[in-house]
This record gives sequence, structure tokens and C-alpha cells, in this order.
Amino acid sequence: MPERKISVCLSPALLPYYDLSQTIAVVIDVFRATTSMCYGLANGAEAIIPVAEVEECLAYRDHGYLLAAERDGKVVDGFDFGNSPFSYTADKVAGKTIVLTTTNGTRAIQHCQQAKQIVIGAFANIDILANWLLTHQEDVLFVCSGWKNHVNLEDTIFAGAMAKRLQNEQTDLDDSAILAMRLYEGAKHDLRGSLQDASHAKRMQRLDISRDVEFCLRQNTSPAIPLFENGKLINAAKQALVG
Amino acid sequence: MPERKISVCLSPALLPYYDLSQTIAVVIDVFRATTSMCYGLANGAEAIIPVAEVEECLAYRDHGYLLAAERDGKVVDGFDFGNSPFSYTADKVAGKTIVLTTTNGTRAIQHCQQAKQIVIGAFANIDILANWLLTHQEDVLFVCSGWKNHVNLEDTIFAGAMAKRLQNEQTDLDDSAILAMRLYEGAKHDLRGSLQDASHAKRMQRLDISRDVEFCLRQNTSPAIPLFENGKLINAAKQALVG
Repeated sequence: MPERKISVCLSPALLPYYDLSQTIAVVIDVFRATTSMCYGLANGAEAIIPVAEVEECLAYRDHGYLLAAERDGKVVDGFDFGNSPFSYTADKVAGKTIVLTTTNGTRAIQHCQQAKQIVIGAFANIDILANWLLTHQEDVLFVCSGWKNHVNLEDTIFAGAMAKRLQNEQTDLDDSAILAMRLYEGAKHDLRGSLQDASHAKRMQRLDISRDVEFCLRQNTSPAIPLFENGKLINAAKQALVG
Repeated sequence: MPERKISVCLSPALLPYYDLSQTIAVVIDVFRATTSMCYGLANGAEAIIPVAEVEECLAYRDHGYLLAAERDGKVVDGFDFGNSPFSYTADKVAGKTIVLTTTNGTRAIQHCQQAKQIVIGAFANIDILANWLLTHQEDVLFVCSGWKNHVNLEDTIFAGAMAKRLQNEQTDLDDSAILAMRLYEGAKHDLRGSLQDASHAKRMQRLDISRDVEFCLRQNTSPAIPLFENGKLINAAKQALVG
């Protein structure tokens, strides 16, 4: 049986060095874009359209969409909301399509367009996503969104948690996956504590969104599989239930 | 007292995202370029001229220099030697100037030209280099050469060992430095074992150079401080002794 490659791309800037053509790309932006995507879709949002730039997001105005834009951790002026998961509750998003742009996460998705499939990962959907990936044969690349191309701890730790779940005798982990897995092993019993020195966690403290951080580190709050199809993220878990 | 920034750049491809102008860059390519540089200078080499391309190296022919070129782990045909540390013994290099090009390490040096100072790190010079860095005030960026822009374990672990030595209440570590330090903490009691799954270690096994690997993981074999000045690496430790 051929080995399945499990790799971790620690920053979007490293994506050009991976061949994505036969690979499932899992985009990760734990604080907070991919957590909010999972939560929104689990709460019945019809779809989420990730766009790289604020201007692209604005172009969807007057189409009945919810517009969400975050830059540097804050909601961009004039938008419905940013990327706090608490903006994506069922009363706000059920049945709606959301157009979203964030500093790091939605750009990372755009950079993965060559991948065979793109899905979205966060602690919010960790187990349902791991199980979904285990039913597939393709190589997997976990793409950490980081912060402005810098590596961050939280996305790396989550990538390690996923690599750990997929690892078996038939998997071949690259050095970044090994590194991420070891980092996760050391952090798993106290995720919050393990992140207290992290750059992004400090940034979050300054933004006074510790409730968001708390939520983003909780596992399995949002059993969705956000799958990128035809320019939109839809919930593949819901499709499976309906099908 | 202002904080001193200690950062780790996990791949040369991430260098554009760091401001090097006020920073000491420490270039790391444990297997084997930077180990060989330390060993060669500690063994009395006059200087090492790192060049990015094989053709540049060839241009130094007929100047009485030793020419060393490695690509994909092997000595390039027609060259005196590659980057095995055992080519850099005193009987071969004392008093000589070496022109060297390697797959990753010498290119990383070329990409750090904006730095205030560039020095070379490896387990071979770990303590003398840490002590030298502790006598300086500038921010420090540890630049892991990796393998063809991919992150590798051995350079990251060494960067973590160095970050650990520099860390105190006045230092501000970026996420990559925290990550590297944690990786080192988990690996330090069995460096060789911690690398047995690593991509480069596997590559090394295939090349049958386990003696090189063993040597590259030994600490303080080569008390040199290879400092990049006027296009050459010279031993700043020797200068200090003479001065």
C-alpha cells in the first residue's frame, strides 16, 4: 500500500514549495476565521464566500448577502461583522450566504486553489474533519494561515493535533508535521496556557476578545466540514446527512 | 531597558517578512554546511567565501583557493570537496581560503545580506556563539536554512537551543522561537533519536554519511565564530584572541 503523505505548511508564503495537485488542503486559521466558518456553517449558513480583499467583499453588496470583513483583528468600518465566532450564531446566519475577508485565513484559501480539494479546519470541527479525512486516500497538506506570513503557535498546534489523528503505519510525515505533532503533544493538556506567550494571543488580549479565544480552543463545538466548491464554502457534513 | 527580540526564521523563503537592518542574523545549516564552516575556521582556515551557485565557485579556480561544492548531499563533480566536516581538517584547510557553495546554507547567507551582522551557528560552536551573542545588544534572527525552502527539524532544534541560551526577562521571543525552544526541550536528551524520523536524517542515511551526522550533533567541537565580513567568513573568535 502506498504511503499517504501528511505535510504541514507553516505559512502561506511556503505554499509555492508544495505540489497541491493531488492533495487535500486543510486551511487553518484558529484565531478566528476558520473557527467562525465552521460555526457559521454548523449554524445553518447556506454558504460562505471567502474573498481575499475588502474591495471584493464590497462588490457583493446589494445581493442580499451578509458582508464580513476583518483586518488586524478588527471589523472593517461599514461591514455587518468581522470574524468573531459570536457573529455567526444561528439567528444571524441560518439560511444566509456570507461573504468574508480576513487578514490571513481567506487569503490562504485563495492560495490553495491548485489543490484537489480544500477544506477548513479548527478545533471547532476537529473530530468530524479528522474522520472525513480518514475516509479519503489523498495526501493531506495542513495549511497554517499564520499572521501576515509569520508562523504562529495556535495554527501549528492545531495542525499537529490533526496530524496525530491521521498518523498510522501507512503515513509519511514531513518534518513540519513531526514538529507540529510534538508541539501539540506538549500543549494538549493546557492549550490556553501553552498559548499565553504567543504573539497572536497577546494581540487578542489587547483587542479584549478573550471570550473568542476561549471559544476557538474548544473542541467539537461545530460539527461541520466546510468544503470549497465553485468559489464557496458549503457544509459537506450536511450534504452527507441529506444524501 | 528595551526588550531584545529573539526570532526564528524557519525557512529562507520567509526572510522577506523580517526586517534585518538592525538585526544579527545567525545562519544555521546543521547538516552540514554551517558545522563544516565552524570546523574549518576552528582548524585554521584563513577564510571561507560562501557563494550561492556552482558557477560562482568555479570562477575562483586558479586563485589558489580550495573549491567546495555540494548539491543534493553530494560533492559536485570536479570539486576538491563538498560539505562533509571531515574535509575541513587542519591538514587540509589551515592557512587556506575555501570557496564553498551548498544546496541550502550558502544561499541562506546570501539572502541575509541586509542584516547588521551575519554569523554562522551549529552545535559545533553553540556555546562560544551564545556567549558572543550575549555580549551584543542587537535583536537576533536565527535563520534556518532548511531543505530547498522546506522547514527541517535539525535546524529548528538548534535554533531552539540557541533561543533557550539567550532567553531572559528582557527578551521577546516570536512564535517561531517559542516553537523551536519547545522542540529543543523535548529533543535535547536524545538529539539523534529525535531526528531519526526527520526527512534530512533519512536522506543522510541513504547517502551513508552517518559519521557526519554524528559529528554535526556534537556540541562545542569547533570554538569558532564565523563572521561574514567583506564577502568572507572569518573567525571572529580568533580575532578576539589576537586582539
